[in-house]
Amino acid sequence: MSVFRIELKVRDYELDMQGIVNNGAYFNYLEHARHEYLLEKNIDFAALTEAGIHLVVIRSELDYKQSLKSGDRFVVEVSVERISKVKFGFRQRVIRLSDEKVCVAGLVIGTALNQRGRPSIIPEIEALFAE
Amino acid sequence: MSVFRIELKVRDYELDMQGIVNNGAYFNYLEHARHEYLLEKNIDFAALTEAGIHLVVIRSELDYKQSLKSGDRFVVEVSVERISKVKFGFRQRVIRLSDEKVCVAGLVIGTALNQRGRPSIIPEIEALFAE
Amino acid sequence: MSVFRIELKVRDYELDMQGIVNNGAYFNYLEHARHEYLLEKNIDFAALTEAGIHLVVIRSELDYKQSLKSGDRFVVEVSVERISKVKFGFRQRVIRLSDEKVCVAGLVIGTALNQRGRPSIIPEIEALFAE
Amino acid sequence: MSVFRIELKVRDYELDMQGIVNNGAYFNYLEHARHEYLLEKNIDFAALTEAGIHLVVIRSELDYKQSLKSGDRFVVEVSVERISKVKFGFRQRVIRLSDEKVCVAGLVIGTALNQRGRPSIIPEIEALFAE
Repeated sequence: MSVFRIELKVRDYELDMQGIVNNGAYFNYLEHARHEYLLEKNIDFAALTEAGIHLVVIRSELDYKQSLKSGDRFVVEVSVERISKVKFGFRQRVIRLSDEKVCVAGLVIGTALNQRGRPSIIPEIEALFAE
Repeated sequence: MSVFRIELKVRDYELDMQGIVNNGAYFNYLEHARHEYLLEKNIDFAALTEAGIHLVVIRSELDYKQSLKSGDRFVVEVSVERISKVKFGFRQRVIRLSDEKVCVAGLVIGTALNQRGRPSIIPEIEALFAE
Repeated sequence: MSVFRIELKVRDYELDMQGIVNNGAYFNYLEHARHEYLLEKNIDFAALTEAGIHLVVIRSELDYKQSLKSGDRFVVEVSVERISKVKFGFRQRVIRLSDEKVCVAGLVIGTALNQRGRPSIIPEIEALFAE
Repeated sequence: MSVFRIELKVRDYELDMQGIVNNGAYFNYLEHARHEYLLEKNIDFAALTEAGIHLVVIRSELDYKQSLKSGDRFVVEVSVERISKVKFGFRQRVIRLSDEKVCVAGLVIGTALNQRGRPSIIPEIEALFAE
């Protein structure tokens, strides 16, 4: 399965007092990359939300290996894998462009909650695994 | 070992378009609770940073079980455990006060980097395990 | 007209690389205080949003006088004033508790947009000025 | 004086429960654009901070005219103007690309604080007005 990539640059408001990107900001980077990936696959998170389908994260496992700093450019990678009948996973990495070092790597597991709050894998997500 | 607790309330800017607290915000809650815990133990994160000692997160494993919404009050729990010679862990939970449900539970693993970037457990952290 | 107050404490993730609270974070503090003020007056921002009434900010004028740092406790003040037929204003101040210094002071002007996007002052807001 | 521009795209975590970009996020966009502008002029905010020179915002006046939503692309503009002996101003606009509408427009006034906390316009900033 192919790996989806977006390229971003650190914004200084994402740095903390240590002068490095705050841990919470990586979560934002990863989420943004997932939504861009889904959009490329014609899955519009905002449109799903309005339709009452909530894609939600149920678990995340992240390893922080290197820190991004002011001015750093980086890539966020996304690839999907099936976890169970109602769970799907996103393998994700944040890679600094200057030296190709992996800064963050991990797995984010999600499900889709329908209007009654029941977890499932919606057909649009199901189709991701058929590729 | 005792469990440290702080009580917080959801702020509306932490909500996303789904009307629930954004996943990244829990990371902020957990960090804030860790720093408050450390402060209670006379470990001042900001003072350490200025002294060139960087406490950093190297891994996080979080389960998202329930969503917080506008107006929700919640408790963030912290307890520490030793992971290895140079790593320490924070067991953390976010508990909604209205129904005592666990919203987020997980383990955040950290280390201390000295001025040369070497990982270690500084004496101040070491003392946490002697209690 | 009385002044509404909430007390908060700086969270370290709100600091930037200068070791002071990032300018954007004050905006969050001010918004949270406005929503808490409205809630005390039985105006629930989240409930209004669900009903299709959007309270929106249309102008802000803020003076940044002092910086908050790690560990600082502060008060956020809110008082309302009528600006025009369809605009209302919030006078707001952020005051550091250790020395009573004003850190941020300003005026945030808003309106309510109904389901058709028309600006107005809804009766609930109108009632704030009758006190 | 020429106008500096960066192009960005809304990230879904910047949306609030109204499904529009939260007011605080515009502040982040504006700051990022100012830092990118300065960097193009060889003024590195992070390097200045490490050297003990703090560029700080002392006043902001912002008009919010239109809201950005999920998926919107936009431009952030920056141009500088001298305000007084020790103050400089950034005229800024956020413009949605789909319809060229101005979403936010305003003036952000800053100064430079030296190691003793004294306000001034440092030579690097002074040079911006000589162009």
